[in-house]
Amino acid sequence: MSMALIVLAAGKGTRMKSDSPKVLHRIAQAPMLWHALRAGQALEPARTVVVAGHGAEAVEASALDYDPDIRVVIQSEQLGTGHAVRQAEPALDGFDGDAIVLYGDTPFLSEETLAAMQAARQTHDVVVLGFQAADPGRYGRLKMAGDQLDAIVEFKDASEEERAITLCNSGVMAMDAGRMMALLGKVSNDNAAGEYYLTDLVGLARAEGLTATAVVCDEAETMGINSRPELAAAEQAFQARARAALLENGVALPAPETVHLAWDTVIGRDTEIEPNVVFGPGVTVESGARIRAFSHLEGCHVSRGAVVGPYARLRPGAELAEDVHVGNFVEIKNAVLREGAKANHLTYIGDAEVGEKTNIGAGTITCNYDGVFKHRSVIGKNAFIGSNTMLVAPVSVGDGAMTASGSVVTEDVPPGALAVARARQVNKDGLATKLFRMLRARKDKQAGKA
Amino acid sequence: MSMALIVLAAGKGTRMKSDSPKVLHRIAQAPMLWHALRAGQALEPARTVVVAGHGAEAVEASALDYDPDIRVVIQSEQLGTGHAVRQAEPALDGFDGDAIVLYGDTPFLSEETLAAMQAARQTHDVVVLGFQAADPGRYGRLKMAGDQLDAIVEFKDASEEERAITLCNSGVMAMDAGRMMALLGKVSNDNAAGEYYLTDLVGLARAEGLTATAVVCDEAETMGINSRPELAAAEQAFQARARAALLENGVALPAPETVHLAWDTVIGRDTEIEPNVVFGPGVTVESGARIRAFSHLEGCHVSRGAVVGPYARLRPGAELAEDVHVGNFVEIKNAVLREGAKANHLTYIGDAEVGEKTNIGAGTITCNYDGVFKHRSVIGKNAFIGSNTMLVAPVSVGDGAMTASGSVVTEDVPPGALAVARARQVNKDGLATKLFRMLRARKDKQAGKA
Amino acid sequence: MSMALIVLAAGKGTRMKSDSPKVLHRIAQAPMLWHALRAGQALEPARTVVVAGHGAEAVEASALDYDPDIRVVIQSEQLGTGHAVRQAEPALDGFDGDAIVLYGDTPFLSEETLAAMQAARQTHDVVVLGFQAADPGRYGRLKMAGDQLDAIVEFKDASEEERAITLCNSGVMAMDAGRMMALLGKVSNDNAAGEYYLTDLVGLARAEGLTATAVVCDEAETMGINSRPELAAAEQAFQARARAALLENGVALPAPETVHLAWDTVIGRDTEIEPNVVFGPGVTVESGARIRAFSHLEGCHVSRGAVVGPYARLRPGAELAEDVHVGNFVEIKNAVLREGAKANHLTYIGDAEVGEKTNIGAGTITCNYDGVFKHRSVIGKNAFIGSNTMLVAPVSVGDGAMTASGSVVTEDVPPGALAVARARQVNKDGLATKLFRMLRARKDKQAGKA
Repeated sequence: MSMALIVLAAGKGTRMKSDSPKVLHRIAQAPMLWHALRAGQALEPARTVVVAGHGAEAVEASALDYDPDIRVVIQSEQLGTGHAVRQAEPALDGFDGDAIVLYGDTPFLSEETLAAMQAARQTHDVVVLGFQAADPGRYGRLKMAGDQLDAIVEFKDASEEERAITLCNSGVMAMDAGRMMALLGKVSNDNAAGEYYLTDLVGLARAEGLTATAVVCDEAETMGINSRPELAAAEQAFQARARAALLENGVALPAPETVHLAWDTVIGRDTEIEPNVVFGPGVTVESGARIRAFSHLEGCHVSRGAVVGPYARLRPGAELAEDVHVGNFVEIKNAVLREGAKANHLTYIGDAEVGEKTNIGAGTITCNYDGVFKHRSVIGKNAFIGSNTMLVAPVSVGDGAMTASGSVVTEDVPPGALAVARARQVNKDGLATKLFRMLRARKDKQAGKA
Repeated sequence: MSMALIVLAAGKGTRMKSDSPKVLHRIAQAPMLWHALRAGQALEPARTVVVAGHGAEAVEASALDYDPDIRVVIQSEQLGTGHAVRQAEPALDGFDGDAIVLYGDTPFLSEETLAAMQAARQTHDVVVLGFQAADPGRYGRLKMAGDQLDAIVEFKDASEEERAITLCNSGVMAMDAGRMMALLGKVSNDNAAGEYYLTDLVGLARAEGLTATAVVCDEAETMGINSRPELAAAEQAFQARARAALLENGVALPAPETVHLAWDTVIGRDTEIEPNVVFGPGVTVESGARIRAFSHLEGCHVSRGAVVGPYARLRPGAELAEDVHVGNFVEIKNAVLREGAKANHLTYIGDAEVGEKTNIGAGTITCNYDGVFKHRSVIGKNAFIGSNTMLVAPVSVGDGAMTASGSVVTEDVPPGALAVARARQVNKDGLATKLFRMLRARKDKQAGKA
Repeated sequence: MSMALIVLAAGKGTRMKSDSPKVLHRIAQAPMLWHALRAGQALEPARTVVVAGHGAEAVEASALDYDPDIRVVIQSEQLGTGHAVRQAEPALDGFDGDAIVLYGDTPFLSEETLAAMQAARQTHDVVVLGFQAADPGRYGRLKMAGDQLDAIVEFKDASEEERAITLCNSGVMAMDAGRMMALLGKVSNDNAAGEYYLTDLVGLARAEGLTATAVVCDEAETMGINSRPELAAAEQAFQARARAALLENGVALPAPETVHLAWDTVIGRDTEIEPNVVFGPGVTVESGARIRAFSHLEGCHVSRGAVVGPYARLRPGAELAEDVHVGNFVEIKNAVLREGAKANHLTYIGDAEVGEKTNIGAGTITCNYDGVFKHRSVIGKNAFIGSNTMLVAPVSVGDGAMTASGSVVTEDVPPGALAVARARQVNKDGLATKLFRMLRARKDKQAGKA
């Protein structure tokens, strides 16, 4: 059956104490909203609707950044979850199939859970996601009769007996989209908060003779995030799972608790990740590479046999071929280093290509910015860039060429040529002795005065 | 009522296995002594006396560094807590009011606890701070009769019944200063250890018909530190509380457990602190700044919208205005960067000013040291410092000026001028090929010999 | 009595999901095999035999790297522990004394435990190492009668009563070497797995009227490693013990959980190790040094009073004398820095000597590599290397000499001389203004077109 996701993302998140809308706070470097959207993709939705409210502009931009086909609707007043879902109606125009309501601040639903809800729709008209709560507190309770969900009872309306129920409502719900919208038209806001509740759909559906059931998942999956301590706990939970998965897949992680992964980090078997490595989004590391301590990678690709760090920073667009070495205090941005190339010390390579087996000396800088424009440096294979070479882009260095240490290279260097751009050395005998004597005398004089 | 703090700081701390006196060991980068002094400041003391003994010179220097008005007295022999407090008598000359005895190795007393002791002094002559011990062990027991403290019973003198008491003595005590000194004159050292005990004051006071009571605090507040494992546990406890407070205040901390705060770190709401950041003393970060991974900040100020790191080191005197960017492998010391200035890569800026919107190229160094003196570099606004520029201080670069990449700037650059100090490039055709061939031939020859 | 170690190291470790043989996976930066070998050295073995199988070549190389006197034998088919031990027979040729069987994947046996086994051999012919298992699961059970070990019962052969025994077999066993080999000749593979079990020796020995007993150790010592999560747990256990030992010995570790030690790290009392420091193998730090945050040390020696970091990388062969300072973004490799020398910022010193009290300016690089060979730089005492000096090795700088900032030094600098190798500065008035105007105009034009 065709499936539509409706993701509620209108909340402000007052308890976050932030100017950002709640769903844009990040876990593993992706907005919570993206985690919810990624979870929903397990259902291969034909349409995805995000309901934005607080900070709608930023939420819309983030949703479209995730997937430009997402339809964003605005809930301009926050009148309850039922009202929020109803805003999705125009965006479902022409859609025929099921709708499932997810939450932008509930990032951890599993594929299996969503598949189980979809399966339960074969036998029931309404499917609600529940969880056995360790501490049911003020959650709504799912009142079951066998596999039939009779009602969702709000805590404040619940009898003593009902409050003893530990199966609680996650808020996630699936049913036919047209029916959902029709029933939402009947939900009233005649309650203490004056809000339209999505949960009322169950009672309304049952009253119309429809069937309902609950799928039960682990409480951890339905974890909602309302404050920064909860966000930090969610991050911790994500990292623990992601690190365990890497270990299981054969990645060498001597200190997993010090490795910070992004939501989409991919690392191959037998790759070693030393302590204190941070991954930003968009990183792929092939099998058998080595990422040394204190490295920072983002938006880059590292091939088999490559060694990165310690203290290497790979920025977006860094592409390291097999057996490349990038060493300490080296930054690579938007640059390809081909097989066996080396840049081991104190170097900045940006907007550049470096050919096979080329050695980049310590202190080399691609001067890619003229104050207004960025330019490219192209270095051939088997070249030798002497220490502290400035490559003033746009510039090229040919295959097998060399630059002398300390040269400022402003013109292209032909293949096999040696570029020299530096002054000759002069030793001024005794001058250091004289200078030291003078400086110390001045210091003594100052000390005498003081 | 006027208040005097008497802080006992004479202990050696043998179990620390250190040449430093115990109270100078640090938590969150401040000596334990400073934590005790800071706690005591909640009482707005009119006078503060520190009793030093082991390593008295270093303890005195540290106390005066905290506050030059502190009076330091020396306990030259360690004859017990009563004896220690009595050394404070001359330093209280002319003081009229209450004295409270604190401990330099008990850093975590809260403001609320001390206020409660002060309040209890309204109704009782002597106020002792107690705590409900999870494991009372060998602590002295507080024997209460209603709200009246009858006696402090040392463990070794306690009956079975008294040992069952779990309310224990923290050692912290408040009473009228004159009376405290008078009673101390009556304390004897007729006990197994041959020491004068401060705790004896309670019995003596009661014997004279004075009233006494106990204020009870959380055991964590009275944590005393006697060994390095205990110090590490105290550090951990401090960090956990400080990180939680930042989260509560709206700071974004995806990996709070990897952020190390100093005792006086101040961070604004909606600032993001990425993993693995270390704060030294004296740092203020305004709201909405971003401190990236692997950064190290000390004695500096970071304004709204500024981005620091990854791998940035801000040293004392670094002052970053709004929207300043300081990037990777960059060190800033005693330097002001004005609004929108950027220093993104491999740079050292020390003893300098950098004007608004000026861009500092990669590899730039302010050569501030001539082997004897330090000198200043002053760079105007909207300037462009080319990569690998050496600014040999004292030197200035005017507004809107440029320096060519690889230049050593020894003379002032007028506004709008371009400074060039480098040699012209010469390409020697075929020379790299020849050099490589020669080197490889030599290597082959050596290999042949070997 | 003379002692031979037989270390079984033939396993593949399928659950590690790795191309490396299991025993070469590392804990605290040494192969597990080395930990087992180091544990065995407590017995001062006259001979050590390693039984290799999977990845035998790599295992042999690693064993010989640990100690070239080790004899490595190959078990080409994995036919059980008894079969494995039997492969050691030729390597014991001429040896007279006891043999003890250890395991390359059991790294944590203590000296005390092995000494207890050796002592027990005074009274019994066969000594087996057992442990009280928290969860005995499928371990073999040690069936005792008083201090006599009657039999080792495999789980699958055990009666209900036998399964209730919690004293389990670690596999470690000691007895006379000749007798061990003789008895192994009688072990059959007539069991479900078709393997020769070492454990059968106990029954065979008892049948021949020999005595046997068990020594009991803590379960943590017999921890075997079969998967990467277990390896990570073992690493964690090692680090926790090693950090606690440093604290006990008087090392200042404010955040011990962030300091990663190697198996052989040695650190003196009153040395401070700030957060986030990684030690590779072969590091010795004397008392009273300071290792600042984010430093990485490997194969180096740091003397009393030296300060390293933050962000310093000491590579193998770095030798820092007393009071040396190595600062941020500085890499030292195969170089001696003599007393009081300083290299504080953005520097690479490799294959070099730096004399007493010499100051190395920011951005200095020893250009030690010409594309084929490595060369040395030798700098005298009381010298001053100006910022961004390139020392093109082989080269020397004499005592009390100076180099001007930005110089490329290709020839030796005599003592007391000043070396200058740079171009004079020219200020081109108004040219920066003109260039900026031109670049911005071009940008505006492009923007207009777009």
